[in-house]
Amino acid sequence: MEINPRRVLSTSTMVAPLAARLLAGERGAVARAIRLLDDGDPAGLALLKAIYPAAAAARVLGVTGAPGSGKSTLVDRLIGAYRARGEKVGVAAVDPSSPFTGGAILGDRIRMQRHAEDDGVFIRSLATRGHLGGLSASTLDVLTVLGAAGFPTLLLETVGVGQDEVEVNRVADTVVLVVAPGAGDSVQTLKAGVMEIAHVFVVNKMDQPGADQVAREIEQLLGFKDRGPGPAAAWTPPVVLAAAGDGRNIDQVVDAVDRHAAHLHATGEESRRRRDRARLAVHEAVRARLDADLAARLPDALDHAAARVAAGTSDPRSEADAIVMALLR
Amino acid sequence: MEINPRRVLSTSTMVAPLAARLLAGERGAVARAIRLLDDGDPAGLALLKAIYPAAAAARVLGVTGAPGSGKSTLVDRLIGAYRARGEKVGVAAVDPSSPFTGGAILGDRIRMQRHAEDDGVFIRSLATRGHLGGLSASTLDVLTVLGAAGFPTLLLETVGVGQDEVEVNRVADTVVLVVAPGAGDSVQTLKAGVMEIAHVFVVNKMDQPGADQVAREIEQLLGFKDRGPGPAAAWTPPVVLAAAGDGRNIDQVVDAVDRHAAHLHATGEESRRRRDRARLAVHEAVRARLDADLAARLPDALDHAAARVAAGTSDPRSEADAIVMALLR
Repeated sequence: MEINPRRVLSTSTMVAPLAARLLAGERGAVARAIRLLDDGDPAGLALLKAIYPAAAAARVLGVTGAPGSGKSTLVDRLIGAYRARGEKVGVAAVDPSSPFTGGAILGDRIRMQRHAEDDGVFIRSLATRGHLGGLSASTLDVLTVLGAAGFPTLLLETVGVGQDEVEVNRVADTVVLVVAPGAGDSVQTLKAGVMEIAHVFVVNKMDQPGADQVAREIEQLLGFKDRGPGPAAAWTPPVVLAAAGDGRNIDQVVDAVDRHAAHLHATGEESRRRRDRARLAVHEAVRARLDADLAARLPDALDHAAARVAAGTSDPRSEADAIVMALLR
Repeated sequence: MEINPRRVLSTSTMVAPLAARLLAGERGAVARAIRLLDDGDPAGLALLKAIYPAAAAARVLGVTGAPGSGKSTLVDRLIGAYRARGEKVGVAAVDPSSPFTGGAILGDRIRMQRHAEDDGVFIRSLATRGHLGGLSASTLDVLTVLGAAGFPTLLLETVGVGQDEVEVNRVADTVVLVVAPGAGDSVQTLKAGVMEIAHVFVVNKMDQPGADQVAREIEQLLGFKDRGPGPAAAWTPPVVLAAAGDGRNIDQVVDAVDRHAAHLHATGEESRRRRDRARLAVHEAVRARLDADLAARLPDALDHAAARVAAGTSDPRSEADAIVMALLR
């Protein structure tokens, strides 16, 4: 890959001042940084390197749940609650059905608008993900930018089905799982693995019939689960009945989240999770670098291999062996 | 990495007979092959290489939709329809809420049981996915095994939100999107990008109030969408009202799928999609090989890097640069 010295110079002269403005919490610098990352600008990567250590203090609160569970409304209420006690809040929403990412009806958009005018709130939607496993890479970058800019609490909203909810557990310090009564298969879904990743359960729409029943079912399931040995076993996820729509019991949700944060800190689980998160970030960065190297050094390799495989004269793993052999030497 | 010559010998002597039995459509060989792959046995990879070209003729039908849309019931009905015309059907279910993967209520399990006793049907659930982007790798392998064993139609059931539905579009020849009235935000979710990946829309539970309305809304949205230039633009996704529960209009769903297959073939889109699928498979295999090489050559690299990043003395991308540099030389 050719290196343009002019580009490198302009990158390095631009990054230091931008990093300084970002670390000072300047809103424009946050937007600028995210734009650089979106554009794949090399300055964005240089910036991330510079600001990364400053982001370590932020805690990430994952809020996940199926479409219709009301998790976006809960996120909205949580923003309000943290703002009410004077904390800045950053939000990254990775959910095609989220109001933050354009999937909302008009009313939601208008409701969210009040936060858009609050300098203490920065909302970033991540609706499109370009490649496989793309959640982590771009999401972690946005969280890094917001954390380095001094947002102590970062809300990460993801849809609670499929691959994403496994990733949110690796990225977040605390995971809130939002369930609503009447969603039919909500507790059924819980049984199949989503359960293990949640630290706080919120049964939303508590006024609707069946809410108490859903809460009881979750508590029963929690009773049966073996949550593994070690200090983490001491945490029993609370089940909180709430109504995000009219703001009922939001303080109880915030309290449960705070208690989990205190638990993480007291048990040393916090640093273990942070190390896991760092490992994930390094691994993602390695994969991204290797993909870039593959594209730069063997630009047609995948296409040629695909043609042979599609023609039935080869298979993906033999082709991969050849490509990796060529790449590693 | 050390190579055990005894292991290699036993692998090669075992793979050829197993491949022959698999290509002859032996059910036990299918189960054996999938077990080898699950166990990460080197024989599994050798087998995949041997059988890959034979899998090319199978067509993959993706069935996707939110939990509660009734897509598992539709899959059940589609199995019945293809069996009724004498075709063998392979099923891979990647959905934590699917009855195939253990998320079902008892009634569903019993209903599915009839296929378990049918030699012309092979159902494989992929409930747990071990790593990021894991959907494609293991799913493609299972589809390869089933295709090579002579199943002409492969149903791939995925939950229609998040990352997975983008992948199903890359893996499947035809994607059926199942929507149910009353799911509240179903059409809202469609707006946000799921729409583009579907070739056939099924509005399930047609007897429930609002089904016609949902069908109309989808047709309106389809009218507004620019589906891009080229031959693919000529395909207008049909919207089929059906009731999988009592089997109504399943023949219309099958007919729509057949028409899409004919369209793919007539326009050359079929070979383009197959090439894309091969490219994805090669890329996944390259990534898996590179991950394995990283683990074998630099076993502690990620852990050490993570410790430095978590301690705030480094950042993920600088660590990735160093790891890739060490790996590529």
